[in-house]
Amino acid sequence: MSRVVKLAVIAGDGIGPEVIAEAEKVLDAVTADTDVTFDKTRFSLGADRFLATGDVLTDDDLQAIASHDAILLGAVGGTPNDPRLANANIERGLLLKLRFSLDHYVNLRPSKLYPSVPGPLKNPGEVDFVVVREGTEGSYVGNGGVLRQGTEHEIANELGVNTAHGVRRVVEYAFELAETRRKKLTLVHKTNVMVNAGKLWKRIFDETSEKHPEVAVDYMHIDAATIHMVDNPSRFDVIVTDNLFGDILTDLAGAITGGIGLAASGNLNPSGEFPSMFEPVHGSAPDIAGQQKADPTAAIGSIALLLEHLGLSAESQRVTRAIEQDIAERTDAPRTTAQIGDAIAARLTA
Amino acid sequence: MSRVVKLAVIAGDGIGPEVIAEAEKVLDAVTADTDVTFDKTRFSLGADRFLATGDVLTDDDLQAIASHDAILLGAVGGTPNDPRLANANIERGLLLKLRFSLDHYVNLRPSKLYPSVPGPLKNPGEVDFVVVREGTEGSYVGNGGVLRQGTEHEIANELGVNTAHGVRRVVEYAFELAETRRKKLTLVHKTNVMVNAGKLWKRIFDETSEKHPEVAVDYMHIDAATIHMVDNPSRFDVIVTDNLFGDILTDLAGAITGGIGLAASGNLNPSGEFPSMFEPVHGSAPDIAGQQKADPTAAIGSIALLLEHLGLSAESQRVTRAIEQDIAERTDAPRTTAQIGDAIAARLTA
Ligand SMILES: CC(C)[C@H](C(=O)O)[C@@H](O)C(=O)O
Ligand SMILES: CC(C)[C@H](C(=O)O)[C@@H](O)C(=O)O
Repeated sequence: MSRVVKLAVIAGDGIGPEVIAEAEKVLDAVTADTDVTFDKTRFSLGADRFLATGDVLTDDDLQAIASHDAILLGAVGGTPNDPRLANANIERGLLLKLRFSLDHYVNLRPSKLYPSVPGPLKNPGEVDFVVVREGTEGSYVGNGGVLRQGTEHEIANELGVNTAHGVRRVVEYAFELAETRRKKLTLVHKTNVMVNAGKLWKRIFDETSEKHPEVAVDYMHIDAATIHMVDNPSRFDVIVTDNLFGDILTDLAGAITGGIGLAASGNLNPSGEFPSMFEPVHGSAPDIAGQQKADPTAAIGSIALLLEHLGLSAESQRVTRAIEQDIAERTDAPRTTAQIGDAIAARLTA
Repeated sequence: MSRVVKLAVIAGDGIGPEVIAEAEKVLDAVTADTDVTFDKTRFSLGADRFLATGDVLTDDDLQAIASHDAILLGAVGGTPNDPRLANANIERGLLLKLRFSLDHYVNLRPSKLYPSVPGPLKNPGEVDFVVVREGTEGSYVGNGGVLRQGTEHEIANELGVNTAHGVRRVVEYAFELAETRRKKLTLVHKTNVMVNAGKLWKRIFDETSEKHPEVAVDYMHIDAATIHMVDNPSRFDVIVTDNLFGDILTDLAGAITGGIGLAASGNLNPSGEFPSMFEPVHGSAPDIAGQQKADPTAAIGSIALLLEHLGLSAESQRVTRAIEQDIAERTDAPRTTAQIGDAIAARLTA
């Protein structure tokens, strides 16, 4: 019985199209001899589309994307300081709008350090953890406001919103994930300063912990977590945290595991009401776009997360193994984006 | 002509009293043959005081402290998870209350990596930067609120407040500081997500930049800044950022420069309306309290910042040199808190 997966592909800006081309290559290779077919729809979205049409993401775009089973996204965002984009905010209007509209409440970001990868730390130890970042609340809600803008009396407010509903579902996901791993879960927040949000996160974390007695828990302030991340990252298994702290911590995690060019992510709607979205953690890097310099590994890793999410575990594991083998055999010789994609794809068809 | 400086000393909890004893030793040593006298008033504040009296910081305490010329603070905060402290929040009620009441709008946090200090990075390069953290606004204002607390419909809000007044004065301070150094200033924020606060910070940063054309400027999102902090920290000279991002970035900065045991800080009220406060960045570390295990270098470094703030530059430089010499000659042999303090003080009287 063959299965057809409707996949929305948003290659986006900068290096997005280059890395997505390689991700698709790998997806095709790993599904070639299976009964799963990916029926792809390409969406031209991002800075170029905005410059051409003035639209960032229309309701029609959103509806069309939402009718798919899953989304693969490259990277969005134009050249920094491009005056024509000054008022566009592609990040909020496109990336965050997708995450919020499609209720991507779990932003899953695994970090693993491979022995062959030259990371910045002297003694990292074995690094293999996952950050479960909340994706639909916190300081990302865009519920602030400005008074007396442009004057010496301007007040600019940013409201961070946290709900029991929003916190509970992501915390539960994190506990369940920890159960399938080394059974350690760390809550990261700043409960001593952001006391309202902190108390809510702590309460729900403690309540959920009681239902998962086999998962060992601890708590860390976000500032202290950055210290542990460079001093002793092997202490982490699963981390659960809010949208902003998760954003910061996963870039740092990417850095200590050898660069954001390897970091994959999934924006998950585990309830299945909306399609989940898979994307590399890195941005559009306009400075190296079109030069075949970008590492497509993060985009290819996002394919592994996509396959896992679709229940295609065997295929997901094959992609992960191919990535790991490729990384293990890396030398100093530079490779183009396509060469890395080809090498990983070749391991799947061999 | 002799000068008397009224110094409020808050040794605080945990390792606070131990490191403050050494800081005072060094202060006494460096001023011994000068015409400056420090007239010290000791304030018993922190978790112990709260447990004994139920008070964290009374109006009388605050008024008494405010009548001094400067404040030296060790660390405050009791044992984590002590149920008797569950509702105390010493951090908000004492430390942050002092910063806010005394209008400490510049939180100055220098980071320097000494060749003899074993940091966690393989190739840090020359690291010598200062974070100018805003100290009286942002997510630290405590202007949030909770609805339906304890229920499945709880909503916990955190309001981050940013004003032109508050941003301008700290940004101006940062530009002036950059002029006395390598003339590079980096603004760190998250303008693509926190657009209200971001626009205000960016506008004022750009406006102030025009008045300081000799200072080279750049901008970085907080998540990207953590990457640069581990990949290439030598690129930074002065960083200016908001309260929360500054909190996170300075702990990371402490970690990459060999540990938070060396990181000093000043909570400054540059206008001089209120006394400034000097403290190590580290916390009270109750787990090692009373064991003479804490490194007092951060507390002693805070003395250097205190002296500089009081216009006693020669004395400040002598303390800094003594610290640098002590660090340069460190061996693996463990020293007690007092031994480190004695060694640094001895270099000042020799
Ligand atoms: C581009 C930006 C809006 C985004 C975020 O802040 O979430 C990015 O940094 C990420 O981590 O995916
Ligand atoms: C103790 C805490 C309130 C404080 C802060 O968040 O500012 C500390 O982390 C610091 O950096 O001085």
